This record gives sequence, C-alpha cells and structure tokens, in this order.
Amino acid sequence: MTLRDGRLNVPLHESFKKLGSSVEFDKRLFHEDIKGSEAYTKALCKRGIIKKKEEELILKGLREIEKEIESGKFRFKEEDEDIHMNIERRLFEKIGETAYKLHTGRSRNEQIVLDERLYLMDVTETVKKKLGGLLKAILGLAKRNIEVIVPSYTHLRQAQPVSIAHLLLAYCYALLRGKERFGDFKKRLNTMPLGSGACAGSSIGIDRDFLKKELGFESITRNSIDAVSTRDFIAEFEWICGTLFITFSRMCEDIIILSSEEFSIYTIPDELSTTSSLMPQKKNPDPLELVRGKSARVIGNLFSLMVLMKGIPYTYNRDLQEDKEGLFDTVDNTLLVFDVMTELFRSIKLNKKVIAEKLGESKDLLFATDLVDYLVERGVAFRKAHGIVGQIAKFAVDRGIQLRKIPIDEYKKFCSSFAEDLYEIFSWERSVNRHDVPGGTALNRITEEIKNIESISTSNL
Amino acid sequence: MTLRDGRLNVPLHESFKKLGSSVEFDKRLFHEDIKGSEAYTKALCKRGIIKKKEEELILKGLREIEKEIESGKFRFKEEDEDIHMNIERRLFEKIGETAYKLHTGRSRNEQIVLDERLYLMDVTETVKKKLGGLLKAILGLAKRNIEVIVPSYTHLRQAQPVSIAHLLLAYCYALLRGKERFGDFKKRLNTMPLGSGACAGSSIGIDRDFLKKELGFESITRNSIDAVSTRDFIAEFEWICGTLFITFSRMCEDIIILSSEEFSIYTIPDELSTTSSLMPQKKNPDPLELVRGKSARVIGNLFSLMVLMKGIPYTYNRDLQEDKEGLFDTVDNTLLVFDVMTELFRSIKLNKKVIAEKLGESKDLLFATDLVDYLVERGVAFRKAHGIVGQIAKFAVDRGIQLRKIPIDEYKKFCSSFAEDLYEIFSWERSVNRHDVPGGTALNRITEEIKNIESISTSNL
Amino acid sequence: MTLRDGRLNVPLHESFKKLGSSVEFDKRLFHEDIKGSEAYTKALCKRGIIKKKEEELILKGLREIEKEIESGKFRFKEEDEDIHMNIERRLFEKIGETAYKLHTGRSRNEQIVLDERLYLMDVTETVKKKLGGLLKAILGLAKRNIEVIVPSYTHLRQAQPVSIAHLLLAYCYALLRGKERFGDFKKRLNTMPLGSGACAGSSIGIDRDFLKKELGFESITRNSIDAVSTRDFIAEFEWICGTLFITFSRMCEDIIILSSEEFSIYTIPDELSTTSSLMPQKKNPDPLELVRGKSARVIGNLFSLMVLMKGIPYTYNRDLQEDKEGLFDTVDNTLLVFDVMTELFRSIKLNKKVIAEKLGESKDLLFATDLVDYLVERGVAFRKAHGIVGQIAKFAVDRGIQLRKIPIDEYKKFCSSFAEDLYEIFSWERSVNRHDVPGGTALNRITEEIKNIESISTSNL
Amino acid sequence: MTLRDGRLNVPLHESFKKLGSSVEFDKRLFHEDIKGSEAYTKALCKRGIIKKKEEELILKGLREIEKEIESGKFRFKEEDEDIHMNIERRLFEKIGETAYKLHTGRSRNEQIVLDERLYLMDVTETVKKKLGGLLKAILGLAKRNIEVIVPSYTHLRQAQPVSIAHLLLAYCYALLRGKERFGDFKKRLNTMPLGSGACAGSSIGIDRDFLKKELGFESITRNSIDAVSTRDFIAEFEWICGTLFITFSRMCEDIIILSSEEFSIYTIPDELSTTSSLMPQKKNPDPLELVRGKSARVIGNLFSLMVLMKGIPYTYNRDLQEDKEGLFDTVDNTLLVFDVMTELFRSIKLNKKVIAEKLGESKDLLFATDLVDYLVERGVAFRKAHGIVGQIAKFAVDRGIQLRKIPIDEYKKFCSSFAEDLYEIFSWERSVNRHDVPGGTALNRITEEIKNIESISTSNL
Repeated sequence: MTLRDGRLNVPLHESFKKLGSSVEFDKRLFHEDIKGSEAYTKALCKRGIIKKKEEELILKGLREIEKEIESGKFRFKEEDEDIHMNIERRLFEKIGETAYKLHTGRSRNEQIVLDERLYLMDVTETVKKKLGGLLKAILGLAKRNIEVIVPSYTHLRQAQPVSIAHLLLAYCYALLRGKERFGDFKKRLNTMPLGSGACAGSSIGIDRDFLKKELGFESITRNSIDAVSTRDFIAEFEWICGTLFITFSRMCEDIIILSSEEFSIYTIPDELSTTSSLMPQKKNPDPLELVRGKSARVIGNLFSLMVLMKGIPYTYNRDLQEDKEGLFDTVDNTLLVFDVMTELFRSIKLNKKVIAEKLGESKDLLFATDLVDYLVERGVAFRKAHGIVGQIAKFAVDRGIQLRKIPIDEYKKFCSSFAEDLYEIFSWERSVNRHDVPGGTALNRITEEIKNIESISTSNL
Repeated sequence: MTLRDGRLNVPLHESFKKLGSSVEFDKRLFHEDIKGSEAYTKALCKRGIIKKKEEELILKGLREIEKEIESGKFRFKEEDEDIHMNIERRLFEKIGETAYKLHTGRSRNEQIVLDERLYLMDVTETVKKKLGGLLKAILGLAKRNIEVIVPSYTHLRQAQPVSIAHLLLAYCYALLRGKERFGDFKKRLNTMPLGSGACAGSSIGIDRDFLKKELGFESITRNSIDAVSTRDFIAEFEWICGTLFITFSRMCEDIIILSSEEFSIYTIPDELSTTSSLMPQKKNPDPLELVRGKSARVIGNLFSLMVLMKGIPYTYNRDLQEDKEGLFDTVDNTLLVFDVMTELFRSIKLNKKVIAEKLGESKDLLFATDLVDYLVERGVAFRKAHGIVGQIAKFAVDRGIQLRKIPIDEYKKFCSSFAEDLYEIFSWERSVNRHDVPGGTALNRITEEIKNIESISTSNL
Repeated sequence: MTLRDGRLNVPLHESFKKLGSSVEFDKRLFHEDIKGSEAYTKALCKRGIIKKKEEELILKGLREIEKEIESGKFRFKEEDEDIHMNIERRLFEKIGETAYKLHTGRSRNEQIVLDERLYLMDVTETVKKKLGGLLKAILGLAKRNIEVIVPSYTHLRQAQPVSIAHLLLAYCYALLRGKERFGDFKKRLNTMPLGSGACAGSSIGIDRDFLKKELGFESITRNSIDAVSTRDFIAEFEWICGTLFITFSRMCEDIIILSSEEFSIYTIPDELSTTSSLMPQKKNPDPLELVRGKSARVIGNLFSLMVLMKGIPYTYNRDLQEDKEGLFDTVDNTLLVFDVMTELFRSIKLNKKVIAEKLGESKDLLFATDLVDYLVERGVAFRKAHGIVGQIAKFAVDRGIQLRKIPIDEYKKFCSSFAEDLYEIFSWERSVNRHDVPGGTALNRITEEIKNIESISTSNL
Repeated sequence: MTLRDGRLNVPLHESFKKLGSSVEFDKRLFHEDIKGSEAYTKALCKRGIIKKKEEELILKGLREIEKEIESGKFRFKEEDEDIHMNIERRLFEKIGETAYKLHTGRSRNEQIVLDERLYLMDVTETVKKKLGGLLKAILGLAKRNIEVIVPSYTHLRQAQPVSIAHLLLAYCYALLRGKERFGDFKKRLNTMPLGSGACAGSSIGIDRDFLKKELGFESITRNSIDAVSTRDFIAEFEWICGTLFITFSRMCEDIIILSSEEFSIYTIPDELSTTSSLMPQKKNPDPLELVRGKSARVIGNLFSLMVLMKGIPYTYNRDLQEDKEGLFDTVDNTLLVFDVMTELFRSIKLNKKVIAEKLGESKDLLFATDLVDYLVERGVAFRKAHGIVGQIAKFAVDRGIQLRKIPIDEYKKFCSSFAEDLYEIFSWERSVNRHDVPGGTALNRITEEIKNIESISTSNL
C-alpha cells in the first residue's frame, strides 16, 4: 500500500517521478530520520498509543534498517519518494503492520524539518571545530613570522609597512565573527519542531518536552505553522558560510597575488600547486582559485534558497524540497575548503630574503606617512604636511630616486621644518612600532592580539 | 588646496568626477561624520596634538556646519568627492588653517566605517521599534479574532481547520527571530573602528578607549586591517532585513490570495487599496504587491554587497564605496514597509460571515485527519486508517457529497470500526481544540503563545 | 608518469585531491571530449605531426575507450583530475607511447571549452525540441477550450472576461521568445575554440578550419585569449533557461491558484498530484510547486556563474572549473521540467461547469469596463465615465447586488446617458469579442494567433 | 477628481503614499509618455472617438506640458502616483474636460510598457554608440603597441609571451558579443504594446499598425496579456549590460594588477588616479576599482528583477513597478562607465622600458613551451617532452638560473634530442610569431584581427 492508494487511484506520471523523488539526496539524512523516529516511537508508547512490545519491535526494526543503510545494503526506491517513506516501507517489510503505527499523528512536514535541524546541529559543531583548526594554522604562521615586515596594500598599491602577522590576524578576526555567528545561530537552530503535525499541531497530545530531551534540543518551536513553513535556519547557516567564503575568497585573492612571480612574498608549497598540461614550467595556485570560485557557488546557494522562500505563501509548499541540495553542496564545500585552507597556512612559506631585498631597495615611498608625522610633530598642520610630502613623493618618483637619498637641502626647499634627524624615520621596525594603539601593527600589539585570539578561539562560544 | 594637489598635478578627468564622487549619497551621513570628528578633535586635544583653543575652534566650526547642512544652506561640491572632504573644506573656509589639523593621523578609510557603524546603530534601534509596533498590530488582530476558524493551507489546498490567530502567530515568531538577530548583531556592530588609520593603526597614539566612550560604543575593533576592510556588518544588517522581507513577502502573498474574490477571507481596507485607470470596479491590493516586489530588491541589495566583497583582496579597495546606496535603499524601504504592514494589520477585516458559510457548507474534507484519529483511537494502525479515509475522501469527492452526510452503513463498508459516534467529530471547535500541544492551534495554546510573544516583544533583546 | 611529475616533485596534498578533482562531474563530457580528440588526431596527421598509422592507432584507442565508458567498464581515477587526463592515461595503457602525441600543442584550457560548446550545441537542440512539444501541448489545450470564458486577473483580482485560450497564448509567446533567444545564441555558441592553446594560440600551425568542419561548427573563435577565458556562452545558455523558468514559475503559480478549491477553474489530473502523509483527503499540486522551486535554483546557478566570472582576471583561472556543476544542474532540471509541463498541459482539465456557474452568478463586476465603453460611445468623456461606473460598482458591492439587477432608474441617477439598451452589454461573448484588435481576446483574434504560433514554432529558428 | 474617487471613497493611507508613488523616478520617462500619448491621441481621432479640434487641443496641451517639464517648471504631485496621471491631471488643468478623453480605452498597464520600450530603444542606441567608442580606444592602444611583448598570465602566473595587443583584442571580442546581443535583442524590444488594454486588448478598435508606424516600432505585440505581464525585455537589457560589466570587471582587475608597483606593465594616468587622505605618496586606481564594484551592482539589479518576476502570477501585478529604479541605475552606471573606460584606454601608458627589462632578465621560463615544441619537432612524443621540460624548469628554478644559461651538456642529460640550435628559441619575437594560426598571437594574425574588429564594430549590427 503506497501513500497515494487511498485518495488517488492512478500512479504518478513517469515524468514526475524523477522530478519529484528526493530520496536520491535526502537519504543523506537517514541517521537523523531514524533518530527522530526512535524518539517518536518512545513518545507514542509513553502516550499509550503503542504498547511496550510494539515499541521494542519498532526500535529493533529501525536499528536494523540503520545498519542496512550504513552497510550499503538498503535498497532505496524512487517510487517511495523520500527517506521517510523508504524507511517506513522497509519497516513494514521487517515487522509487519506494527510499522503502520509509527507515523501516527505525524507529518512529513515536521519530520523533514526535524531531520534538517538535527543534521545542522551536527554539521555546525564540525564546522566550528574546523574553524578552530584553521585559526590555529593561521596563528602559527603569524607567530613564526611576526617580525617579517611587508608592505600593506590599499587599492593594491603599497601603503605602509606592517608585520605580515598583522594581515594574518585580520583574517582571524573575520573568521572569528563567523564562529560568533554560529554561536548566536544555535539558539534558533536547536529548537525541536516535532509535534507540529502537518501545520496545526499534534492532535494526539504527544509529549513535546519529552521529545526535546530525548533528541538533545534546547527548546521547542512555539507555533506549528511557523515550524513547518520556515527554512530560515537553513538560510542562516548558508549565510554564515557565505560570510566565511567571502573571507576565504579575499584571503585567496591576496595569496594568489602575493605569491605571483612579481610579488614573490609567499611561496605556495608544491603539494598545493598544479602544473599545466601544455606549459611545463607552470606552478599554479589552483586550490586557491578553486576556493575563490567556490565562494560564488556558496553565495549562489544562499541566494537560491532566499529566492525560493520569498516566492511562496504559508504554510508548507513543496518548493521547500529544493532546500536540500544547495545545503548539502554548501556543507560539503565548506568542509573541503577548511581542510585545504588549513593545510595551506600550515605549509605556505614567506620569502624573507625577497621581502627584505624589496623593502631595502625600492620601496621607501612607504615611509611617506612617517614623513608627514615628522612634520606634524614639528607643528605643521596635518593637511599641509600631507600636501608637502605629496610633492616630495612626486619629486622622488619623477626623478626615480629614493626618499632617503634626497639630500636635506632639497627637503628644506619643500618645508623649512625638516632637519637632519628626518633620516631616522627610514627604519621599518620604527615605522611599524609607531602604530602603537590597540589593533595597530606595532609588534607588541600584535603579540597581545595573538593571545586574545587564542583565548577566544578555544573558548566555547 | 585639494587632496590631490601634492602627489598628482593634474585635475581628475571629467569622466571620473561623476563616477567617483560619492557626496550625493554619503552626505546622508553628515550627522555621524560630524559626531565622529567632534570626538576625534577631543582626542587630538587630549593627546596634546591640538591646543584647547584649537579644539574649541574646531568644535564650534563643526557645530555650525552641522546646522548649515540641516538647514539646507550647505553647498556640497562634487569635486570634494565625499562628505568628509566637503566638511573639511568648509571648516577651512570658516576657521582657517586650524582646520587642517582635524585630520591628523586619520584616514577616510576608518572615518567612513565609523560613520556607517554609527548610522546603523541608530537605524537598528528604529527598525526594532517598528518591528515591535508591527508585532503589536498583528497580535491585536489575532486577539480580536482568536475564535475565527479558517482552513489552513498546505500546497494552497485546504488542510486542517485552525484559528486565524494561529496563522498570525506564525508571522510573529518569524519576525521575532528577526528581532533576535538584530540583538545578536549588536555586538558585532557596536565596535569602534577609529584609530585604525589607513590600515596599519594610528601612528599618533590616539586614545581609542576614550573615543569608544565618547561615541557610545561597546567595544573597539581589534585589528586595523580588518577594521577598514570588512563590510560584513553592513551585509549582516541587510541579511537580517532580507529575512524580514522574505517573511513580509510570504505574508503579503497569503493576504493577496486570502483577500481575493474567490477566497474572501480578508477584506483589505479601502485606504490601502487602489483602483484601475481603465477598469473602474477594481480594488487592488497594491501595497501588498509592492512589498512583495520590494523584497526582491532588498535581497538584490544584499547580494550585490556580497558579490562586491567576494571580489576584492585586502585591505581597503574603492569598490567598497558601492556599499552605501544599496544600504540606504534597504533602510528606506524597510522603514516604509514596516509602516504599511503595521497599518495593514491594524485595519484589515475578517469576513466572518463568509468564513462561517464556507466552513458550514462545503469544506468538511477538512475533517479527514479527525476521521483518521477516530480510527486510530479505535485501534486501527495509523497508515491503514490513513488509507481508509483516503478512500472515503475520494468517495465523497466523486459523488459530490459531504463527509458528514455519508450514512453510517457506508462508513462501515470502508471500516468496521466506525460507529454512530463518528459524527461527533464534525465540529470545528472540537477539531481545532484537539491540537492541544505547545505550539498547536487549540485556543488555549494560542492564548498562551500570545502572552509569550507579548512578553518577548516588549523585552529588550 | 603524471602531469606533475616533471615540474613538481611531490604528490598533491590529500586535502586538495577531492577539492580539485573534477572527473566525478566532467566525465559527463566524455563523448564530446573523445569527439574533439578524434578531430584533433586527424588534424595532427594532416599537419604531419603524427603518421597515418599513429592516427589510426589513436582513433581506434579512442573508440574503444568511448565504448568502455558507455558500458560502465571504464575506471575513472580521481588522481587523474579530469576527463581529459583520464582518457589520455587510458589511451597510454592501450596503445603505449603514441598516446603521448595526442596532446601535442594542445591545452586543457581549450579542450574543456571545446567539450562544453559541443555539449551545449547538442543540449540546445534538445531543449528547442522539447520547447516545441510544450508549445504544442499548450496550443492543444487552447484549441480545445477556445470558447471557455474565464475572468482574467490583474493584481489577482477579477478584471475582464477573456477566453482561457488567451491566457494560454500569453505563455506561448513568452516561451517563443526563449526559442528565439536560443536561435540568436547559436552564432555565439557554434564557434570552434580548438587551436587556441593555453591562451596564445597553437604553436604547431594546426588547421583550425579543418577542425571546424570536422566538428560541425559554423565559425572559429578569433582570439585565443578570449577563447579560453570566457564562459559567457554558458552564462547565456543559463540566462535563457532562467527566462524560461521565470515563465514556468509564473505559469505554475497561475495554475496552483486557479486549481485551488476556491478558484476551481482547473483540475489537475491525479497522476500529477500527490497526497499527504498525514491528511488523507489532500490532493496536492506538487509538480507545479517543485517547478516553481526549481526556478529559484536555475536563477541561482546563473548568478553563481556571473559572480564567478566577475571576480577573475584574464586569462584562464581555475575558478572556471566551477562552471560545470551548475550548468549540468540547469540542463537536467530544464529537461525534466519540460516533460512535466508538457504532460501537465496534455492532461489538465477545465471545470467548465464551475466556470459557467461562477460567471453566471456573481461576477458581473467584470462588465464594468463594458459599462464605461457604453457611456463613452454615448459621448461621456472617458475619465468621467470611469468615475461614474466606479460609483455604480461601489453601489453594487455595498448592497450586494449584481450590475444587471440594478434598475434603469438607478442607473440614470448616476448618469442620464444610460438607457434600456445598456442591459445588452451583460453577455460574456459580446464582451470578449469586443476586444477585437490584433493580440486581443476576441475569439477570431485568438484563432489567428494560434495559427501564427503554430507556424513560428514549427519553423526552424 | 482623482482616479479612486469612484470606487473607493477614502483617501490613500499616508503610509502607502510614499511607498506607492512612483512619480519620483518614473518622471524620467516623460518624453516617452508624452510621445505615446500624442500617437494615441491621433489614433483616437482616426478612430472617430475624438474630433479633429479635440486632437489639436490635446496635442497642444501635451507639447506645453513637455516644455514645462523640460524647463523644470512642472509641479509633480506625489498623490497623482505616477507620470501618467500627473500628465493627465495637468492636461485637465490646461484644457479642461477634453483631457478626460485621452485615456479612452487605455490602461496604465500598457502605457508603462510602451514608455519603457521607447526609453530602451533610445538607450540601446546610445550604449551601442559608446561601445563603438570604447572599441576604438582599445584598438588604438593595441595598434600603438602591437610590438610590445609581455607575459600572458594563466592562474596569474607567467605563461607564454604575447603581444599586449593580443590581450587587448580579447577584450574587444568580448565586448563585440555584447554589441551582437544588443542587435539580437532589438527584435524583441522594438515591439509596440499599445492596444493591449489592461490585459484583454483594446475594446475600442484602436489601429495598432498606425500606432506602430507613428512611434517607430518594427512590429506589434501579439498577445495582450503577455504584453502587459512581461518585463523580460528589461531583464534582457540588464543581462546584456551584466555581461559587459563582467568583462569590464575583468579588464579592470587585469589593469589594477598590471599597473601595481610590482607588475609595472601599465601606468595609469594621473587624471584617472586619486591619492589618499592620509598617505600622500599613494596613487590609486580608483576608477577601475569603482567599475569593478559597480559590476556587482549591475548584476544585483538583474537578479532583483528576475527574482521579482519569478514570484508573481499572470497578468499585471504591482510588483512590476519595482522594475524601474534598478533599470535606471544600470543605465546610468553603464553610460558613466563607458566614458571612464574609454578615457582610460585613450590615456593609459605601457612601460616599455620596464617590460623590456623584465623580459630580458628573469622571465625565460616563458620559453618552456617553445622548448617542448623543439623536442616535439625532433620526434619526442609531446607528453614526454612536456615531462622533460618540466624537470628542466625545476632544475632552473631550484638553482636560480635562466634557461638560456643552462649549458648544452646539461640539456643533453635531460634529453639527447637537444642540440646547439636550441638556443635559437630564446627570442620573444620568434616565440610570439610561432603562434601563427587564426586567433593566435603572431603579429600578422593580430593585424588581421584588428582589421576584422574595425570592420565589425563600424558595421551596423
């Protein structure tokens, strides 16, 4: 007996079978589905709807089915539409009519939401763990290279010298906000929907608090229509992943550029590089490009879900079945990308020699702000000092000479406040350490922040 | 003296002036910009970079400028690019060279982020207040009509009878999650970025804690590169608005359908209706359609920003200037839509007579689940009972008769467990009140949840 | 020997293998890849780079590999990264070192673009054929029901009477623009990229015109960098599918509403309906909801690809690998949805009896525009006539009476131009047939357009 | 008398006035709206609905109104909702009751679509003209620098030497497809919708062919429901702009990177650069970053519209009002960006000296593919040659020496096929000119393609 045999006396049209069946992808939720059915069975027994013996029979059957699926022996049938009905069908094959009691007063509308919430509770913990691992890898690189001074870039133009660790900590703080968001998300996610029925609430007085405890939730949903209609908890998960991927994409863009032959600040390890099928000299940063590419996809998945939800009335509509494939895709890619990014920061190298050469030779326009500060300290109004140093920079670029090589007499022509001690500013360490406020690139500040991040990232948000 | 006069000795090309100037839209931030400059002036004085007299001069100048802008007398110049430089220029016109000290050690990169954060702190409070007003309006409608029983719809097909209040509470819980998200967002938003410089941190040792207190923030940003590079706080605001608009769109879709001539459950008041320029009989729910349409735009704004951020490396890039117009558009539409939605729920009417007629006459297929429950209580396994009632439903539809009109002998042909008392199930109140679990549509449960929502929505999340 | 053995002396890191390997999905392109390699082999021979015997050996090997894949015997290896290298590896296993000549002067950058173009040339023809089938099904329904008059809806409110065929033809014209777009697209798609090398063009003087003819293209790409860098032909395909899905979504929305219990204009056949796992009376239009849901996904896929392309510099970047899964998803869903939609229009029924009853009884506000026309014909200025009929409509609604039941004396109170003959306007046929301009709902016009659509849709665009 | 006075006896609620009024932005369409009304007036006269004198009166009134708007004297009123009703109201003020005849048998549903189509017909021509100008500027730069050889980049790693013109032509071909798409789009755009009424077609027998000629269209719409319901012509325009902006974004990304201090291939002129408010040495490529940023917005606008359309049933729904602001934003930004990009290519400089130095010194890994070709010509199978040269590249990198400096004996250790003549390959010109196939980077091929592009871009697609 299939579900439709009562009300509809013809089979589903072929054309719809493939379109409508979700078991090919929702079978991923079999653990959650069985876990939910086990708890529901106990609740039915507690409520007196099934007997203790029936409870035992169903639970045993469910455990066996779980093992069959785990071992790959379970035969999923497209015509059973989804994971729920596949399991119910198999349960009937195993234990007979008692199986028909499992669904008493329950709707697939609430069941799928339960499965998705259980799944995401699990996934979120995994993602947070991986996030911790990535932070650790980035911090490791930062700690090993705290004294490596590189140009910072605004507009992809050299701006001011900073410790490379300072840039790395920027990544960390962006990622930490992701962790924080997952923490906030938890209270909206860990809410138990079972007992909502199709949309009006259970009509058999099932004990929702019992189900909550049994399934490890923190609270129960407080409106049955809302419970089966919303997917905002999935969208919120995808949104948080989206923010992480934006950060990943920007990190990758940084590293792709900074590891180019022309920048040569980073060297990407061979095991994370590929070559070309035509040009044998190539060493390409493919993993980073793929992560950048995948961020488009993760954003696209979020967008698809939001568009889908925007387009439907209350309560449950079948459109919602489309929530799953995008979610699984986002989850899979998130997990994969964390692994690659973590490995990357564990193994990437800084070309200290090249960096030192570059700084030493040609890049002393990076001291321009220090020159401005010099004048400000000697009483020149900031905006005037800014203008003066702008002219000096132009003078240096036009003549192709370095700031430190311009003689004091020339400097004095630009502004009489310059004196011999101006040449003291041309020290990378000095420049970096002058940015000595919380969050600044002064090395002592960076050390402070590394400790801060370590303490936050190991705390249980 | 313009900013570019030092380093670049030619004026901006005409073609770029219009593209590059942001003052046309970022002037909206003038309050925040001046507030930030006032605090910064005090911090400069505290740090000994300007004297008390200079501080007073600058503060007076800024206050005058604020009034000029408020009164519409201020002349914004496109060539001054943005709100920051327009104010600096005007300050110079007013107080002379002292004005040139205001920007000491400060970058527009941090200034704009400060302005945006201050702006959003303010906007978020307004939105939360309006959200509270909307909840109150919906709850009012729910309370006035708690005993009005309507069909609930899944797949836009009549499902089970519910109190109309039950549907209204579903909207409330969805909106409350929006409120909760704004609450969580606060800790990421209320973070003071000033002192980050262009990206390396202040080089003049500005007192960031002083600035934090002066400006009413809860904490300070902990990495200067992160502070000037990220716009995730804007994206998060737009994301939360996006979730609200998804709910708005679904609510509007509901009400458009439920107020159609065919459904006639709601009557939209004339003052929120329009007519046609051609067909004089028309009474159209234009506000609801516009809200539905605007939700596409709000989602689009979020995605534009995410796409923008995904595409850039660290640290600040000018692409980020494009964050503002979408944000302002989202803010403006959010505020407008809250007002319309609130008015809607204040004035919309339920056609109790039509609803009662409809329920009374033709819709008793809505009792199908009650019939199933009846059989289950008499020991029939749920799935079998489901199949039996499916056949009965088909029988009734094919013959065009109501369930309550099928004689007991016919019922017994379908299942011998049926008895005379089955006809007791055909009561809307009874049916509704059987859904008696937390979150169910039983009237006592609804009363409970109305209290719950009232208490949450007036609490300060 | 793997590709990387020369330049990179360590294997790929585990974490990247799974992320980087595309063979799991690009193996779908094996036919196209082999077809391209066959043509390339011939061109190499023609160019004198391989000998006739070598050519034969390679072609034989490729044909065998094709069969192995078709029969499911081929062992794809993740470590060979993609379909191209899997085939090259297998060819070597089969024919030894000669296999190493196949890739001479060729890059995977051009190879994948070739495969994708060949694939899309094929898919586009299939989609166009299915589009023709859907048009035929819609036209069939239209022809069978040309005389069925229903209310048209603007703002989901009854507007003016139209033939249901008129609405159906609106769908057809929207779909025909899709067909036209595919036709236009062809000239951008059917362009042969082989000979572009990695990005600088072939360095072995391969005969590109020969390849073009051999592979059935209409023209060749005219810049090798452009050829390997762009994916706009994929985006254009997805865009056209997106426009089709927007139409599908709107059609489905129409039919879901018009087949609800309240509207009852359509009856969806049982074989395209499903029931509920809880509520046995339900007959749900799941296929239509899924199509509506899938349209979000198809738009999301397009969006992902555009975002991806927006974010990369020239020339080839590995991000582009991410173009495929979204494309395949769009293709698969497009084909599935055409089948379901076609079946739907073949089997859906119009409830002529219900429609007639509804029109007959209560809906004569639909004649309001006819009343306006009546007054205009008698010399009343349109806007005044519009105002007068608006008052009459309000009068009728407030009193709950029909327009045709208002006595002539009442009419005259509103406007003295009314006379006894006004009651002649209350005929559905008359009203419909008054819209007698090209594209109007007059039945003769509809007949005209059906012919027009039949002739366009069978023409070869 | 306002539109609503008949049917609805209360004024619009305040909260909706602002949300619902579109005149603030649709007033941009006043030229088109008046043009449409002029033609419609003539058609009414031709049909005998108004007299010749009335026609003259209305036309005179409309011309005066047009001048009032042009001169800024027209007072738009929010309460008149939109441009159409503002003009009708003003016409009444000017000419009295005859004004009330203008709208006879016409609906705003068709009127707005007419305005939008007229507007886009005009805009499309402007965009195509600007596109021609940009192509000319790029071609000019290409022609001036055809002999400048630079590294091409795949994966942002040096790949093979190409003429800089080759990269520039890649941009041209991408842009030309945009031009071609506008050409194809024309047949769907230039279709006259007037005579569609609200959705059922004109009921007054208006002469649609007359209107078509009068308004300069190529054809008329063939289904009145389709005509007022679709906005796919707007989406198609935005889609084509989206493809252009993807190309713009990639071009800008290229140039931002290639003009960085580290790459130094381009110098962006000072008039398209800005400096920093803090760091006086900075010379930032802001216009390019803004274009990159704006591409996110243009894509966002397209998606907003697609999402909006996906979410509504037939026929006209007020959601569609939201089509305009995004369109205007896309149009404005497209026009602005064309000007900036054109100026950029007119004035950007190539640093020939730096390029020559770089090539001369360190970049001879770029010859790796030439080495492979050398071996292939001497009978080594391609894949083997590829592996051998990969090892040589590794050897060179590890030792920090150039390929041309490796002695012949070393080469022979890698492969015995190497001989003294191998050193001839180390010529940039030779390497470039070996890519001698249509679309390749050989200089003669580039010259060919420049001519081809010139001829296409001046042809009238």
